[in-house]
Amino acid sequence: MTSSTPLRPFMSDNAAPVHPRVWEAMRAADDSAPPYDGDALSQALDERFSDLFGRECAALWVATGTAANCLALATMVQPHGGVVCHREAHIEMDEGGAPGFYLHGAKLLLAEGEAAKLTPDDITAVIDPIRDDVHQVQPHAVSITQASEYGCVYRPDEVGAIATLAKARGLGLHMDGARFGNAVASLDCAPGAVTEGVDALSFGCVKNGGMSAEAIVFFDPALADVAHYRRKRAGHLQSKGRFLAAQIVAMLDGDLWLENARAANAAAQEIAGSCGNRLMHPVEANELFVTLSPAEREVLRAQSFAFYDWGDDAARFVTAWNTRHDDARALAQAIASL
Amino acid sequence: MTSSTPLRPFMSDNAAPVHPRVWEAMRAADDSAPPYDGDALSQALDERFSDLFGRECAALWVATGTAANCLALATMVQPHGGVVCHREAHIEMDEGGAPGFYLHGAKLLLAEGEAAKLTPDDITAVIDPIRDDVHQVQPHAVSITQASEYGCVYRPDEVGAIATLAKARGLGLHMDGARFGNAVASLDCAPGAVTEGVDALSFGCVKNGGMSAEAIVFFDPALADVAHYRRKRAGHLQSKGRFLAAQIVAMLDGDLWLENARAANAAAQEIAGSCGNRLMHPVEANELFVTLSPAEREVLRAQSFAFYDWGDDAARFVTAWNTRHDDARALAQAIASL
Amino acid sequence: MTSSTPLRPFMSDNAAPVHPRVWEAMRAADDSAPPYDGDALSQALDERFSDLFGRECAALWVATGTAANCLALATMVQPHGGVVCHREAHIEMDEGGAPGFYLHGAKLLLAEGEAAKLTPDDITAVIDPIRDDVHQVQPHAVSITQASEYGCVYRPDEVGAIATLAKARGLGLHMDGARFGNAVASLDCAPGAVTEGVDALSFGCVKNGGMSAEAIVFFDPALADVAHYRRKRAGHLQSKGRFLAAQIVAMLDGDLWLENARAANAAAQEIAGSCGNRLMHPVEANELFVTLSPAEREVLRAQSFAFYDWGDDAARFVTAWNTRHDDARALAQAIASL
Amino acid sequence: MTSSTPLRPFMSDNAAPVHPRVWEAMRAADDSAPPYDGDALSQALDERFSDLFGRECAALWVATGTAANCLALATMVQPHGGVVCHREAHIEMDEGGAPGFYLHGAKLLLAEGEAAKLTPDDITAVIDPIRDDVHQVQPHAVSITQASEYGCVYRPDEVGAIATLAKARGLGLHMDGARFGNAVASLDCAPGAVTEGVDALSFGCVKNGGMSAEAIVFFDPALADVAHYRRKRAGHLQSKGRFLAAQIVAMLDGDLWLENARAANAAAQEIAGSCGNRLMHPVEANELFVTLSPAEREVLRAQSFAFYDWGDDAARFVTAWNTRHDDARALAQAIASL
Repeated sequence: MTSSTPLRPFMSDNAAPVHPRVWEAMRAADDSAPPYDGDALSQALDERFSDLFGRECAALWVATGTAANCLALATMVQPHGGVVCHREAHIEMDEGGAPGFYLHGAKLLLAEGEAAKLTPDDITAVIDPIRDDVHQVQPHAVSITQASEYGCVYRPDEVGAIATLAKARGLGLHMDGARFGNAVASLDCAPGAVTEGVDALSFGCVKNGGMSAEAIVFFDPALADVAHYRRKRAGHLQSKGRFLAAQIVAMLDGDLWLENARAANAAAQEIAGSCGNRLMHPVEANELFVTLSPAEREVLRAQSFAFYDWGDDAARFVTAWNTRHDDARALAQAIASL
Repeated sequence: MTSSTPLRPFMSDNAAPVHPRVWEAMRAADDSAPPYDGDALSQALDERFSDLFGRECAALWVATGTAANCLALATMVQPHGGVVCHREAHIEMDEGGAPGFYLHGAKLLLAEGEAAKLTPDDITAVIDPIRDDVHQVQPHAVSITQASEYGCVYRPDEVGAIATLAKARGLGLHMDGARFGNAVASLDCAPGAVTEGVDALSFGCVKNGGMSAEAIVFFDPALADVAHYRRKRAGHLQSKGRFLAAQIVAMLDGDLWLENARAANAAAQEIAGSCGNRLMHPVEANELFVTLSPAEREVLRAQSFAFYDWGDDAARFVTAWNTRHDDARALAQAIASL
Repeated sequence: MTSSTPLRPFMSDNAAPVHPRVWEAMRAADDSAPPYDGDALSQALDERFSDLFGRECAALWVATGTAANCLALATMVQPHGGVVCHREAHIEMDEGGAPGFYLHGAKLLLAEGEAAKLTPDDITAVIDPIRDDVHQVQPHAVSITQASEYGCVYRPDEVGAIATLAKARGLGLHMDGARFGNAVASLDCAPGAVTEGVDALSFGCVKNGGMSAEAIVFFDPALADVAHYRRKRAGHLQSKGRFLAAQIVAMLDGDLWLENARAANAAAQEIAGSCGNRLMHPVEANELFVTLSPAEREVLRAQSFAFYDWGDDAARFVTAWNTRHDDARALAQAIASL
Repeated sequence: MTSSTPLRPFMSDNAAPVHPRVWEAMRAADDSAPPYDGDALSQALDERFSDLFGRECAALWVATGTAANCLALATMVQPHGGVVCHREAHIEMDEGGAPGFYLHGAKLLLAEGEAAKLTPDDITAVIDPIRDDVHQVQPHAVSITQASEYGCVYRPDEVGAIATLAKARGLGLHMDGARFGNAVASLDCAPGAVTEGVDALSFGCVKNGGMSAEAIVFFDPALADVAHYRRKRAGHLQSKGRFLAAQIVAMLDGDLWLENARAANAAAQEIAGSCGNRLMHPVEANELFVTLSPAEREVLRAQSFAFYDWGDDAARFVTAWNTRHDDARALAQAIASL
């Protein structure tokens, strides 16, 4: 970060700046309001998300996606149960064991699936062999990620099929929507269409122009009651919570969440266009997984592009709400020139 | 909050606005920095606190005092152990069972003590009767609150005596410093003088002009290593953590933390001066517990003073960094006129 | 234990021998039966207890009272909740923090009450001051001990009043019946009469002539389903569980549990008769708490009586199913002669 | 079990009867001894195992292998850590999530390996890709099973190589010895030779002629101190623990544990001799995994042989200390005749 040429950042959307309208909303919230979630903005969340999804919702702010995912799951999974998720799901790979903590030792039951997405068949391949006896951990819920860890999206019918299975088996259904905006922008559908049958959604803001707020949206408001207690118990109930609520409301106002996601997605498409069969997965959101040799990555880094290696022969590029068009085009050209 | 006359707020310092210099520091942090605690501000915390306390420290940001307290304690207390604390300590009364969660079922061992402070005798009264056998939960740590839940402060020698006892008994020592600034401002001593023998300090900022950042300061840096894992596992590692680090650094720069605390303390003294023997505890920080009948409280509320009832015959007033001198004086006069 | 004169044991009923009929039943169970609880004896427990209590029950064996209490409570209490119990309840004082472990950090909410018994007023004194907000741990269940830790019994109407309160407040009701037999023998009532409104009972056998088996009796069979998973998860599902089931069935056969309890109670009454106003609590089961100076205790110990000190000025004597009449009479005379 | 022809049982050694010498020892323990582990037999365990292994040991009884495994691991693994084990290890497959409970949410890190055994390479294949950062669960221990879940044994040099790796990486090493006797009998080596570098061993008795006792043997006695607290906290400290100690001592007396294991192993060899290339794994202890079509299994069951299916095309046969030679020979002949 100290080089004279500024980096062209494609490391992660989680390091991007905060959107100006989020800043404005936070500043506007700086009065002496009731603490915790007694302020008007926090109180408005249920209604705002009910409007957005077209059905009754109850929503809580929380500071991180890890906390959102785990608090959501904690309302559906007993300590002796399990959660079916993809082997490369964030809750399995990147949360430092938080599900084990929040779920009091419940187990992640790992499924395989193309592009880090699950199908009903992927799920039954995991749960059908589980004997219905006390020696084996029984599934209590399914968690899917929208967009997936490989930047692919579930279409409404795909979510619906999983929801149908979950309901038939008595399982809760959680959606990790750290990049839910990117998914909905990509699908160009109603948010409610792609969450039909979902019990709780982690609605991401931080990767999409926010600072420190995610929403947990419960489509079954009864679950939210438990989540309120668990949030406090996890030390996630901030006294000046109005600043988190303000961020979320700012994202919803004028559909900023979609505007930001579209910008990130468009930058990803710009780059994808020059990647050809280097692409390891379809680019449906704001992440690209690109086959690149070490030497090729060296060439790109020499041009100030910053990104993560993905194993030995590939790289991951992530665009964000603020990715400059120049940077995206330059990266596209640089890849094309390899 | 909807009345035409603005309220004169003495409810809690946790609802106060954010100090302008904290805002400035946050805005200045809004670049594309490495996520989590890879940014320069987060990286600076160890050194900043080492300078402040005059010995080697390791420090982490976290969003709430509850998380700070519990993560600190989790480095000292095994799941089968216990924490001695005052019966009215925040960790016992106000954290929604968070210690039970973070410490995996460890037990709070409740002590009595004047003004919510503990003496070595108060502590031994709890731990000496515990048989050294597996049927009883053994103490692993002591937690004290500075300033105490009744706004009283531990002098350096008082902390030292507890630290000596803790060391002799093999117990960790944690200090809940949600209002540590108010205590140090009151004592007018070096911060290091009043933390001698303490293993971990929750260094509060939110009640003192911050927005959403507290520091956990480990005087034994080895403990910080565990805390880093536990913080992530608790969903408290924010990707844009630089905004938390910025708040803490802003509080340390130019001793803003002391400046703010002195302002709050001074307002409390202004009010205390007119309370006479209505005071239930000495006013040594920024909280006042005042004997007031229901009718008297009614009179104060009619004058727009906002505060909490404290049982049936008393009220709690809390001043903050931004308490207006006019409001403090008006409250003093109003109480004097009762 | 190495003295030439055999001790006259009044230390605890938990150290007594195993009843011959329990031994016989265990030996009779020593065939190659299906493991875990697939054997005929384990399968019979539901029906046996349903017969005993006159309503539908589901029952599990487990090796210890601590496990029984905690597994029972785990079906009623969420990790963020609390259990109201007496300050001197076994779960609070003697289980090494097991409730914190089994309940995943849930809290014991301690009540006062005469003779270690609780009344509805004792319970409301604890729960009514709890604010209905997320900062405080909410009660989820009540646990009472029958007979109490001071050897006193709840009459059916006393249990009923607590059950009524529990139901009205949405709380589960657990009865720790480590000495349930002694209580029922003392009350001379139907077992079902004194468990009306109770959700789960720890039905003790070990202190009453058993070796290593207690029953958890669920009066709401739905709770038993969870308990089966939790029992395995706690490592309490023994593969040769038939030997535990055999003990319990032996206790029920021909009401051995009552026969043994009556013997112990009678021995306690024999001793009580000579204690006069030395008795600290009414003797209603098989425990005596007797005011005795250190010198007086010395005198008794010199006569080979073995017992625990109870604080500085008292002693605890416990009789068991096998207490010899001679020993009881001798103790009665020895106390009378002091 | 209701057929007129008695079954010839090869289901599991965990359903076998209790050895007469174990019964005798239990009966002999039926005096009024100090409760918990204050009796002479419990007190003797440290020395008995120290003698057996030729180095200082500390040992505790516990009722089940699941409890033994989990309590052992709980002394080595912090809640935020992980345990490397085989994908088919008992702790992963058959303990109902007990490790998640006892380790407070720590994670099992699953390795592949021939015949359910692990090599150092199998272990490094799991732990080397784990980034040393807080987002991923770090390994704290390794657990291996002796004999393995497929009835294969680790030779002393194989254990030694794993121990060397564990030590180099700062990991604890646990051995699940539910069938440790079968392994040592098979290896015909000193018990100490095959536990060099192991920190804790679950020394199985129940599958080897015991009733309800396993020993946890700590080769680092400091770990036993924690285990004592955790055992009580898990409700596994039985008041009449002398009956568990008696079982273990009976197993050690005159090397009954080896005598029983040899008998079971010999029966397995008898059967193995006729299985030819139907054997899926070498038969090194008392389990046989045999390729058998559904029709073939039907034929065997018609001859009263009882066993488990192992997937669609195989069966598992387990011999025990009491397997009759006639039954083993009959099974061998029946398989040969298929």
